[in-house]
Amino acid sequence: RMIKQVLIGVLCGAAVLTAGILIGHFGITMSSAPSWVKDVAKDVDESLIEKFLSEVDNIQIQENLRSLTKVPHMATTAGDEQTVQLMLKRWQDPETGLDQAWREEFMVYLSFPDPKKPNKVTVGDPSDEVLYTAREKEKTYTSDQDDPEVVQPYAAYSPAGHPKGKLVYANQGKPSDYQLLNNTVDLRGTIAITRYGGAGRGAKAINAAPYGVIGVLVYTDPLDINDGLMSDINETYPHSWYMPPSGVERGSFNGQFGDMLTPYLAAKEETYRIPAENITGIPPIPIQPIGFEDAYRLICSIALGNLFVSIPCCFILLNLNLFSSDVKLDIFNYEEKKNSSNVMGVIKGSVEPDRYVIYGNHRDSWVHGAIDPSSGTSVMLELTRVLGKMVKQGKWRPRRSIIFGSWGAEEFGLIGSAEYTEQYFTKLSERTVAYINVDIAVFANATLRASGMPSLQKIIFKAAKQVDAPGLDSTSVYDNWIQYSNRTSQANGLIPNVGYLSGAGSDYAAFVHYLGITSMDISYTYDRSKTNARIYPAYHTAYDTFDYASKFIDPGFVSHQAIARTAGNVLIRLADSLLVPLNCSDYAETLEDYLNTARVKSLPEGCTADLCLVSEPLKRAVASFRSAATHLDQVIRSSDLANETPLTVRRINDQLMLLDRAFLDPLAFPDKYAYRHVIWASSSAGKPTFPGLADAFANAESQSSAWDKVHYHLSVLSQAIEGAAHTLADEH
Amino acid sequence: RMIKQVLIGVLCGAAVLTAGILIGHFGITMSSAPSWVKDVAKDVDESLIEKFLSEVDNIQIQENLRSLTKVPHMATTAGDEQTVQLMLKRWQDPETGLDQAWREEFMVYLSFPDPKKPNKVTVGDPSDEVLYTAREKEKTYTSDQDDPEVVQPYAAYSPAGHPKGKLVYANQGKPSDYQLLNNTVDLRGTIAITRYGGAGRGAKAINAAPYGVIGVLVYTDPLDINDGLMSDINETYPHSWYMPPSGVERGSFNGQFGDMLTPYLAAKEETYRIPAENITGIPPIPIQPIGFEDAYRLICSIALGNLFVSIPCCFILLNLNLFSSDVKLDIFNYEEKKNSSNVMGVIKGSVEPDRYVIYGNHRDSWVHGAIDPSSGTSVMLELTRVLGKMVKQGKWRPRRSIIFGSWGAEEFGLIGSAEYTEQYFTKLSERTVAYINVDIAVFANATLRASGMPSLQKIIFKAAKQVDAPGLDSTSVYDNWIQYSNRTSQANGLIPNVGYLSGAGSDYAAFVHYLGITSMDISYTYDRSKTNARIYPAYHTAYDTFDYASKFIDPGFVSHQAIARTAGNVLIRLADSLLVPLNCSDYAETLEDYLNTARVKSLPEGCTADLCLVSEPLKRAVASFRSAATHLDQVIRSSDLANETPLTVRRINDQLMLLDRAFLDPLAFPDKYAYRHVIWASSSAGKPTFPGLADAFANAESQSSAWDKVHYHLSVLSQAIEGAAHTLADEH
Repeated sequence: RMIKQVLIGVLCGAAVLTAGILIGHFGITMSSAPSWVKDVAKDVDESLIEKFLSEVDNIQIQENLRSLTKVPHMATTAGDEQTVQLMLKRWQDPETGLDQAWREEFMVYLSFPDPKKPNKVTVGDPSDEVLYTAREKEKTYTSDQDDPEVVQPYAAYSPAGHPKGKLVYANQGKPSDYQLLNNTVDLRGTIAITRYGGAGRGAKAINAAPYGVIGVLVYTDPLDINDGLMSDINETYPHSWYMPPSGVERGSFNGQFGDMLTPYLAAKEETYRIPAENITGIPPIPIQPIGFEDAYRLICSIALGNLFVSIPCCFILLNLNLFSSDVKLDIFNYEEKKNSSNVMGVIKGSVEPDRYVIYGNHRDSWVHGAIDPSSGTSVMLELTRVLGKMVKQGKWRPRRSIIFGSWGAEEFGLIGSAEYTEQYFTKLSERTVAYINVDIAVFANATLRASGMPSLQKIIFKAAKQVDAPGLDSTSVYDNWIQYSNRTSQANGLIPNVGYLSGAGSDYAAFVHYLGITSMDISYTYDRSKTNARIYPAYHTAYDTFDYASKFIDPGFVSHQAIARTAGNVLIRLADSLLVPLNCSDYAETLEDYLNTARVKSLPEGCTADLCLVSEPLKRAVASFRSAATHLDQVIRSSDLANETPLTVRRINDQLMLLDRAFLDPLAFPDKYAYRHVIWASSSAGKPTFPGLADAFANAESQSSAWDKVHYHLSVLSQAIEGAAHTLADEH
Repeated sequence: RMIKQVLIGVLCGAAVLTAGILIGHFGITMSSAPSWVKDVAKDVDESLIEKFLSEVDNIQIQENLRSLTKVPHMATTAGDEQTVQLMLKRWQDPETGLDQAWREEFMVYLSFPDPKKPNKVTVGDPSDEVLYTAREKEKTYTSDQDDPEVVQPYAAYSPAGHPKGKLVYANQGKPSDYQLLNNTVDLRGTIAITRYGGAGRGAKAINAAPYGVIGVLVYTDPLDINDGLMSDINETYPHSWYMPPSGVERGSFNGQFGDMLTPYLAAKEETYRIPAENITGIPPIPIQPIGFEDAYRLICSIALGNLFVSIPCCFILLNLNLFSSDVKLDIFNYEEKKNSSNVMGVIKGSVEPDRYVIYGNHRDSWVHGAIDPSSGTSVMLELTRVLGKMVKQGKWRPRRSIIFGSWGAEEFGLIGSAEYTEQYFTKLSERTVAYINVDIAVFANATLRASGMPSLQKIIFKAAKQVDAPGLDSTSVYDNWIQYSNRTSQANGLIPNVGYLSGAGSDYAAFVHYLGITSMDISYTYDRSKTNARIYPAYHTAYDTFDYASKFIDPGFVSHQAIARTAGNVLIRLADSLLVPLNCSDYAETLEDYLNTARVKSLPEGCTADLCLVSEPLKRAVASFRSAATHLDQVIRSSDLANETPLTVRRINDQLMLLDRAFLDPLAFPDKYAYRHVIWASSSAGKPTFPGLADAFANAESQSSAWDKVHYHLSVLSQAIEGAAHTLADEH
């Protein structure tokens, strides 16, 4: 009975205790945590990153590249449409695709040669008998070059025309080149032959026209691209990565980005278009690119002027028959408005779907484009396969949304990405945390190269440390990189050197300059101790093929794999970290470096009396920025973000996300289309410093009335940097 | 013993149960809710609003006004500094002040008459003997007018000069007035006399100069301001609210807002300034305002030209001595850069301190400024007293931060508020939910008047329904208002008419046009069946005093109280509601009304062939906006926002906050300083529709090449409205 009583007592006690627990747990409902409390505090999962890294497969990338490069896919051609379909199929795959994928079309202004009337470069005698004709197409080494869709080499946006005149050699076609030449030769009515490099493509013609030059040729010099090698018998492709003698770099010869007829407006069918004659920054006279074989023959035989050209075998190429003959260009290029497609895909964010991380690359090439851009597209497709599979299997969904963009018509002037930013300007400005651009993923297989806003530097380093360097045992991409390119940072010691995105070399341009979105661009690149090539030698030629890429650029596709892993690692961290991984103190260091390089210290020399004091606000602004960055970093360190209200981390994340937006000034550069970021705009200054200020200084040296512009840019900069400091600060 | 056992059992059971409850409640820590879960879900407290309404005190407002109007407080004078100190003292009061208050100075370009050489208007005979001199100062009725700090009537930014010539009467100084006059009179070398109204102040001189007019006078006609009454013996102040015969409206004669030397830059000491000769929009010839007594004498005696002036007693005023004499202006105005102060105060938000609701009013007046602006300042001080007390007592802290701005130098061209928006552009753009402007709080005591973005309409209605109409039994401000001014809305039925902020009449201008911040402006105003006065008759005169306000505008200060209650109610709701109370469907209705009023339907008449189809995108954009608004409202209705993750309501709030920002285009109006909002920009169209498009249509009627501009604005608008629709939509 005693036992029974005890047993009953214990059972009753247990029951009462259980009831109590239940009441305590569920009864006091006010204090039980809603299910979302855990979700909103979740940080990036390191084991998921490991899984991602292990799943990125070099052979998949290789096969992606093989599929993408079957046929040439110049923008808006049938081959381009095949790649659109390929992207859509992959991104809509029920097992490895994204949440959604679709195409978006823009009607954009392009320029093509006429397949029925190919452009010609000939040498004729006075009676117009043709003595010599330059090649119309590149020489065939593999069947790729025989594809009828290989576009003839041409200069996009060169006007049509038939100029004829004496040939003059004008070096790189820089203003100084024409000026020098004009001292000894009357340039009126001449055709100038120039080599790539030194000046922008279109600039070679724009610089020439004021001297009366009526046509321009451009070629790639073997010293600039082939480390001097020239022979296709045993030196150039298919024997190596070097450019064969008939290879020609195609390209867009316009000077701004985005569709030229619809500035600041998305190029829809009914959109207002400026008259074509109002377009600026395109060649005013016909220009045509040719191979160095033809170029050398022309230069050695007939070019006038300063002939200190390092052509070792000029005496062999000399053709006395041609002497004193005229060169004639017959250019039949025409412009056309055509529909170009972006392919877009999205993985919707779980906790903050209204925050975007964008990853993009263009899809269009000049010919087969194995390296440019399909190396990047192959990497992007492998990223989306691995991430898409995790999403479809229900194993993962990022905190923020990830948007993938496969841009169209980049080769004609970054058109697809620029139109995208124009159409979605507001939404992208408000919601985008960062943009990652991987265009050419692999230029060469030696080392990582990265450019971007300084705030992204640390997350790139973190990612690069977790990836094995291709072809090296137990060395990380980071450890390898720091050996090739490094600098000493006051705060961070010896670190790899991350470049700045101050130009418009790829699709990051509209994101950086027009939208002010924190951006980066990465690739694998050269060992500069082994080559001086301006760029990989098959760039924009008919030799940029799968064969070329797989044999000479990245056999085994391990550098592609390293880029996919590094870029993907950064992407996941940007999308999934509780705290947006952007470091504002590293931005402060860059502004301080800029200030040290800027000539504000020596302002009194040559400046007007009023102006001598006005550099103080810029110094104060940089100091404000540093102090706000230090404070915000302190707040971050001392916060327990996972346990505070999610509005606290959202607030800090917004400060970091909007930091670059604070540097936008739509009126600071009235002559530079869509350049609004006062820190990263392009400039003629050869060194990293405030671009508008540097250009204003340069002008003030020659014109004392231009000191006003220096003062103006000091005020614009001070206000923008103070504004960025306000973005980082809490106070009102 | 039995009892004892039972007692022990019960006690043990209770102890075990308690232990269980404690274990259940605290032991299972994973699921216990953090303390902030309740805070982040808190909505506006209706009982707090009731308490606020009951505490707003008319006598406090009266005493505020008495203190503020002791002396004249024109911008940057000693009187202005007294009001700065008053604001700071109140806002820093430990018991009824704000969390923080401080002053911010800008060095701004102002224009003053010279006290040592007063401006003169005289009539002289050919030998320069002075036959008649207009009054230099207004006549004294109360001691207020004797204050030596009463500034002489003048036209700010009129150049100095001494023009002399025949007088011509030019009606309102509109372009059409001068054109008509020019048909019968050679205007070269004349002085034009004009009346206020019809054209902007400065425009009366700008329009005159091309005809060779060398000086301008301007006066306020009794028909426009006094319902025709003219005699100070028994009709005008101090017998009524009407303007005495010597009363003169002062004013700024510039045409843009903000400091004119520092466009788009905050006017700090070292800021770059444009050369003063590059300023546009100011009078190119001297101009001076005078009283109607002097004006009538001059007009009746000597004015040439079209004399169909309704001056009933012209024969009495006729002075034959003056006949055929010249009028001479001696204007000694000078410009000076002076420090002007904004006084800022803040109540820091509890949950979302990084979201701002801004409430502002200017502090500077022309003379004593009892109505303009001190009626508004008195109301603002009462608001901050009541809210500040609740904060200091720990009874309340708003969810979002509230910023109060007491702007300087508004009368010279909205300068203080414009410089503030330039200095803090980034932060304000990113974080401001809405701006509330209460400048003149009470024009008259008949009815509420409100203007603002349509998205604010419903919250103004809600607030107005909770406030008793002054002087009426059991009638709300809303019920009274709807009787005076109403319209029928398709969605909302009969509602009070809320105006649009398409001009730049007060400090909302920079917030609306430059920043794209959702804004409103409210006041108590006239019964239009009782007066046709263009504005309250003492406006900008030496009679706008405490005596005038308390006797004729709002005896008992009950209309002031009603404005304080209504504006404060809106302010609390904007700052404290869980969901930001902005209604996007009401915005859609306005865009649809705009579209119906725009001439896009009749586009084919006169348009070029290409253009006839291009209005479709605008129609589609308005439809997209409507559909996105309907969807968002649906999402809001179907959400349980208080119980979802706070990031959900934050996302929706961001969509609503940023809606107006989507309509900004910094390039749409290159000729209109700081006008960027494509829906609300000023326009010459007399009706509410898309401003850029309406102006382009008007030009295209006279010039067929201007159809391009119509097409351009159609594209700009379509893209902006689509962008706003994207802001409201979730999808990517």
